[in-house]
Amino acid sequence: MHRVGIINVTSYMGAELVRLLAGHPGVKIASVTGRSAAGKPLADAFPHLARLNLMVREELDEDVDVVFSALPHAASAQQCLPFIRRGIPVVDLSADFRLKNVDEYQSWYGVEHPAPELLASSVYGLSELHRDAIATARIVGNPGCYPTGAVLALAPAVKAGLIEPDIIVDGKSGITGAGRGLGLAYHFSEADENLSAYALGGHRHLPEMTQELGCLAEAPAPRVTFAPHLIPINRGILSTCYATLKPHVAAGGAQERIRAAYEDFYDGERFVTVTPTPPQTKQTQGVNTCLVYPTVDTRTGRLIVVSAIDNLVKGGSGQAVQNMNLMLGYPEATGLDAVALYP
Amino acid sequence: MHRVGIINVTSYMGAELVRLLAGHPGVKIASVTGRSAAGKPLADAFPHLARLNLMVREELDEDVDVVFSALPHAASAQQCLPFIRRGIPVVDLSADFRLKNVDEYQSWYGVEHPAPELLASSVYGLSELHRDAIATARIVGNPGCYPTGAVLALAPAVKAGLIEPDIIVDGKSGITGAGRGLGLAYHFSEADENLSAYALGGHRHLPEMTQELGCLAEAPAPRVTFAPHLIPINRGILSTCYATLKPHVAAGGAQERIRAAYEDFYDGERFVTVTPTPPQTKQTQGVNTCLVYPTVDTRTGRLIVVSAIDNLVKGGSGQAVQNMNLMLGYPEATGLDAVALYP
Amino acid sequence: MHRVGIINVTSYMGAELVRLLAGHPGVKIASVTGRSAAGKPLADAFPHLARLNLMVREELDEDVDVVFSALPHAASAQQCLPFIRRGIPVVDLSADFRLKNVDEYQSWYGVEHPAPELLASSVYGLSELHRDAIATARIVGNPGCYPTGAVLALAPAVKAGLIEPDIIVDGKSGITGAGRGLGLAYHFSEADENLSAYALGGHRHLPEMTQELGCLAEAPAPRVTFAPHLIPINRGILSTCYATLKPHVAAGGAQERIRAAYEDFYDGERFVTVTPTPPQTKQTQGVNTCLVYPTVDTRTGRLIVVSAIDNLVKGGSGQAVQNMNLMLGYPEATGLDAVALYP
Amino acid sequence: MHRVGIINVTSYMGAELVRLLAGHPGVKIASVTGRSAAGKPLADAFPHLARLNLMVREELDEDVDVVFSALPHAASAQQCLPFIRRGIPVVDLSADFRLKNVDEYQSWYGVEHPAPELLASSVYGLSELHRDAIATARIVGNPGCYPTGAVLALAPAVKAGLIEPDIIVDGKSGITGAGRGLGLAYHFSEADENLSAYALGGHRHLPEMTQELGCLAEAPAPRVTFAPHLIPINRGILSTCYATLKPHVAAGGAQERIRAAYEDFYDGERFVTVTPTPPQTKQTQGVNTCLVYPTVDTRTGRLIVVSAIDNLVKGGSGQAVQNMNLMLGYPEATGLDAVALYP
Repeated sequence: MHRVGIINVTSYMGAELVRLLAGHPGVKIASVTGRSAAGKPLADAFPHLARLNLMVREELDEDVDVVFSALPHAASAQQCLPFIRRGIPVVDLSADFRLKNVDEYQSWYGVEHPAPELLASSVYGLSELHRDAIATARIVGNPGCYPTGAVLALAPAVKAGLIEPDIIVDGKSGITGAGRGLGLAYHFSEADENLSAYALGGHRHLPEMTQELGCLAEAPAPRVTFAPHLIPINRGILSTCYATLKPHVAAGGAQERIRAAYEDFYDGERFVTVTPTPPQTKQTQGVNTCLVYPTVDTRTGRLIVVSAIDNLVKGGSGQAVQNMNLMLGYPEATGLDAVALYP
Repeated sequence: MHRVGIINVTSYMGAELVRLLAGHPGVKIASVTGRSAAGKPLADAFPHLARLNLMVREELDEDVDVVFSALPHAASAQQCLPFIRRGIPVVDLSADFRLKNVDEYQSWYGVEHPAPELLASSVYGLSELHRDAIATARIVGNPGCYPTGAVLALAPAVKAGLIEPDIIVDGKSGITGAGRGLGLAYHFSEADENLSAYALGGHRHLPEMTQELGCLAEAPAPRVTFAPHLIPINRGILSTCYATLKPHVAAGGAQERIRAAYEDFYDGERFVTVTPTPPQTKQTQGVNTCLVYPTVDTRTGRLIVVSAIDNLVKGGSGQAVQNMNLMLGYPEATGLDAVALYP
Repeated sequence: MHRVGIINVTSYMGAELVRLLAGHPGVKIASVTGRSAAGKPLADAFPHLARLNLMVREELDEDVDVVFSALPHAASAQQCLPFIRRGIPVVDLSADFRLKNVDEYQSWYGVEHPAPELLASSVYGLSELHRDAIATARIVGNPGCYPTGAVLALAPAVKAGLIEPDIIVDGKSGITGAGRGLGLAYHFSEADENLSAYALGGHRHLPEMTQELGCLAEAPAPRVTFAPHLIPINRGILSTCYATLKPHVAAGGAQERIRAAYEDFYDGERFVTVTPTPPQTKQTQGVNTCLVYPTVDTRTGRLIVVSAIDNLVKGGSGQAVQNMNLMLGYPEATGLDAVALYP
Repeated sequence: MHRVGIINVTSYMGAELVRLLAGHPGVKIASVTGRSAAGKPLADAFPHLARLNLMVREELDEDVDVVFSALPHAASAQQCLPFIRRGIPVVDLSADFRLKNVDEYQSWYGVEHPAPELLASSVYGLSELHRDAIATARIVGNPGCYPTGAVLALAPAVKAGLIEPDIIVDGKSGITGAGRGLGLAYHFSEADENLSAYALGGHRHLPEMTQELGCLAEAPAPRVTFAPHLIPINRGILSTCYATLKPHVAAGGAQERIRAAYEDFYDGERFVTVTPTPPQTKQTQGVNTCLVYPTVDTRTGRLIVVSAIDNLVKGGSGQAVQNMNLMLGYPEATGLDAVALYP
C-alpha cells in the first residue's frame, strides 16, 4: 500500500481527497494536516469522515510515498518543497505549479514564486493532454476548476485548427468552488436565489486557459475572454464556450465535422464523454467525469461548446487522484469508478 | 378607476399581474379568466391571492378598459382580437405582437399568425426604446424575458456604434421563466443543484433580439448567438453579453467611453440603472428594475455587459404594467415603486 | 410626516424596515445608523436600497418621532434609552423588552439588563394579543420570529382551554433568521441541501413562548418543548405545534370545535388567516401575514397546528411597523398591504 | 456472480439501486425493466448511467438470482409473484410486504392485497431489528423512508421501556422522496424556497411505525402522531421525535441513561451511529448511514431524538442492498462502504 499524505485536509478539496482515497485499493491515508484543526480528530471538522479515524497533525509525516497539497498558492509550494527535494511525488492542487511563466504567475498572484526553478520540470495535470509527462513527473500542478472545464471543451477544436483565435468562456460555478472560508458573497442568505458575474477585470484561471490552449494551437495564440459566474448550487461547473469557425469549416457540414473532431480527440478517454445532448452538471455529481457537448450555431457560423464537471472532482481532487494513479503506475481509473450521485 | 381584464390569470405571469395591479391606485381588477380554473375562486389556484376575492371566469367581461393576456402564442392573439376590434388597449404578454415580420413569426412558432394585419400597428413594448409609440398604441406586444435583459444590455453600445456586429448573449434564467406547466426539466429533484444549457439550436427569443438591436444599429445588422441556460432559482435572468469593440473604441479610454455611452443612454430612466459593480439578480427580486453593468476586457478589446432583471417583473408583468401606464396616461412608475425583496 | 429613525439599519431586519417604511404614506426615514458602515451610503451595504439615498450615520438624529432598533440585545436597550427617556416611541426588535421577568432575561441572555425598571411599562409587541396596550405604550418589545409563529398557532387553543399543558413546538426556519453575520452553519456550501436541528438544550425564544402562552392559560402553565431547525431557504418559518386535547374536547366533534375556536379568535384580524389547507411559507413571502392551520389527529386525540410566517416581516420588521402604526394612531395595515411574492 | 434483476429501474429508487450495485463486487445487473422506457437504453432516461450499457426491457429475465422491485404498491407484489413462487429472493421496495396485518394494508392503501398468504413469511427489512429473519427470508418488504428514520430514532428508548407510549414524529423530507412523477407540489418554482406540512390526516408510513415500535414495546402499544413535511432539498430525511420520559427515568441522570441505552442498542452496528451533536442530513448524502442523536429536555422531562438519513439510500435502495447482502450471505456492508458526498 502506498502511504498518502494530505496537506490542508480541512479544506473542501482536502476532504474530497479523503473521500476518494478511502475507496482506492492501493493506498492508505497515512498522515493529514490542517491549520486550525491540528491536534484534533478530522471528525471534528468533518463528521462524515469519522469512520476513517484520522487525526489532524500540524506537520506531515516524513514517511509518506505521495503528497497532495490543498493549501492556497505560495504556502502550498513552500510546504511541498521538502517532499519534492526528497523525490516524493507531489500533486499540488494550488496554482503554484500550473503556470510555466514565472512572471505571469507573479503578476496574477501578486507574490514571488517560492521555487521558480521547479516550474520547468513540473507538469500541468490535465491528464487528457499531458498523460505521458504526468506519468514521469515528480511535481504535478493540478489544474484549476474553471480551466479544466474550459480547456477540455475547447481542446479538440483548437488542436484541429477549426476555430478563429477569439474565444469566449462563460463559466458558471457552484459555490464550493470558493472553498470553506467565510465571505458575504457565500453567506447562504446572499448567495441563495441569486446570480451574478464576478472578476470581470480578470480571473486568475485565465492564464491557465491561455497557456494550455496556446500549446495546442498553431499561431496565432488564442485570445480568451473569461467571465466567471456564481451559481447557487454546491457542486458543478458549466462552461459555455464560443468561437467563430474558420471559413473553410463554416462552409458546409460544420456540425458533423466538429462532432467528428471531438469524438476522435476523446476516443478511448475514460473520463471525458462527448454527449449527444447538452450536459447537466448534476450528471457529474461526485464523479471524475467531464461531459462535453459541441454544436454549431449555423445562423452565425459559430461553435458553441458546453462542458460540465464536478468542480471538486474532475475540477480538483478527482483529477488529483487520476494524476496520482498515473504517477504511481495504477490504472488511471483506480478508485474513480463510482457512478454519479443523481439526482 | 380603469377596469382591467386579465386573460389566463392562473399562469405565473397572470398572478404577477394581479400582485402588481392590486397596488396600483388607478385600476381595479374587474375580470379574470383561466382555463382549468374557470368557475372557481382564484384562491384555489393561488391561495396568496385570497384577499382579493377574485373569481376565475371562462370569458372576460366585455366591460373592461384595458386587457392583459398571459396566454401562449396564437391562442393569445385569438382571444385578444374582439377587444382589439373594439379599440380597447391590449397588452399581450405572448409572442404574437412582438415580431414585425410575419414570416419570421411563422417560421419560429410554427403556426399561422391569427391577425397578421395588426402587426404594423402594434408596438414592441420595451418602454425604454419605444415609449412614444407605446403611448399611442392600441396593441403592445410585451417583450420576452430574455430579450428584455439582452436588448437593454446592448442597446447603448449598438446605438452608439461602438461594437462590431458579432454579438454573443449568454442568458441565465430562473425556472419560473418556464411557467407553471409541469415538465421533467422543471421537476424539483431534477432542476435543483443542476445547471444546463438548452435550445442551442435556436431559441424563440432570438429573433426579438435581432429585430430590436437591428432597429438600433446602422448596417450591418447584428449577428446574435444566443445560448439560454436553466439555473435553479425561482426568479431572475442574468444576461452576459459579449462583443468586440470597434478598433477606434478599443484604441484608448474604452472603459470610460463605454460607461459614458451607457449613462447617457439611460439618463433619466426610472427602471434602468447603470451599476458601478456587477449586478445580482436578487437585487431586482419583485421589482421592475433592470440593472446594467458594462465593462471592457482590455486584454482582448471586448465589451462585456451584464444585466439583471426579475423575469416575472421587468421581464414580464411589471413591464406590462409599465406599458399600461404609458397607454392610459399614468406616470410610468405608478404601482411599480416597491423596493426589491432582498435577501 | 412622522420622522423615523432606524438603529443598525445594516442588518437584515434594518434593511427590511427600510423596504417597508419606504412604502408607508405617513412616515419619512429621517436617520439611520450602522456600525461598520457609518459614514457611507446605505447603498454600499444594500445596493437594492440605492434609490432611497440614505446615508448611514454613527448616531441617530435626535429629531426623530419614532425609533426602531435592530441591534442585538443589551446594546439595543442601551442605545434606545436616550429616546425612551425623552418620551419618543420605541420599537425594539431585540430581546430586551420582551421578557417581563428580569431574572429570566438575565439567565437566558447572560447579561445584566440595561434598564430593568422599564420592563413593567414595556409591552410585548404581538399586536393580536396586546393591541390596546401597544397603542398606549412608549416601549414595545417586538417579538422573536419563532414565538410569533408559535404563539399565534397556539393562542386560540390555550385561551379556550382546549388542550393539556404539555406542548411541543417544532420550529423550522429559513436562514435569514440567523442574520447577516457570517458563520460556518450559514455558509452556502454547508447550509444548502442540508437539514438539522439546533439549540436542543434550550433556545432563547422559549421563555417568550412560555410567558405569552402562560398569560393566556389558566393554571397550570404550559410546559413547552421547543426544537428549532435550520432549513435551506431564505425567508419563512413553519411552526408545527402538538398538544393533547383535553378529554372533553377529544370526546367528539373535536375537529369542528377546534376550527370554530380558531376562527372566533382571529375573527376580524387583518394579518392572521385560518386556512382551509396546510399553509406554505412561500404564501407569506414578503408580507405581514400569519397563516394558521389547526387540525386534529383523531387516532390519538392530539391537536396539530401549523403556522407560516415570513420571519423578516410578521416575524420581525413587518410586525414592528404594525406596532408603530398602533402607537402612532395609523390604521394597523398602513404600509403593509402588499401581496405576497409568489412564487 | 449473482445475477440481479431490477423491476422499474426508471424510478429514482431504481436508478439508485443501479448506482449502488454497480460497485458491488458480488453481483451483476443482469436485467432491468421500466414501463415507458421499455426497449430503450437506460441512458435515455438516466444519462449518468450510460457507462453501464443497460437496456430497459418490458419483462425481467427469468434467469436472475435475486430481484428488486421499485414499482408502486400492488403492482409490485403482482410482478414479484412469479419470482417468489420459484423461490428467488425478492426485496420489494414498495409497501406490499411491510405490514403484517392485511386489513391495515387494505385500509391504508385502498386496494386488495395481491398475495396476503405471503405476509406471514415475509420480513420487514429493517436490518438492525430483523437481521436474522432477513437472512433466511425469501421476501423482504423494504421499509418506507420515514419509518426507517423514525423507528431507528425511537427503537432503543421503546425497547428499554424508557418512555411513555405517546410519541410524536415530525418528519422532514427532501423532495426525491416523492419520486420522479410530476406534480405541482414538486414543480421547482413551487417547491423551492418553500416549506409545508402535508398528509396531516394520516400518512401511509404511520402504520409501519406503529407496527415496528409496537413489536419492541411492552404494552401499551405506542400511540404515534406523525406529521410529514416537504423541504426543498433533494435527498435527506430528518426525523425529530418527541416522547415523555417515564417518571423513574426523568427523576435523575436521564441524559446519561438515555445515551447509554442508545449506545448499547447500536453497539457494533455498521450503519447506525449515535452522534455527539445533532446530525445533519448532508452528512449522510449518498450513503447507507443513519445518524441518531438522543437528548433530554430537562425542563419538561421529555426525550427528543433526531435522526438523519438519505431517503434514497438507508431510506430505500441502500437498505435494500443491505438486505440483499444478508439474504445472499455477503458481509452486510458489501458495496455500501462509500463515504458521504459532502458538501
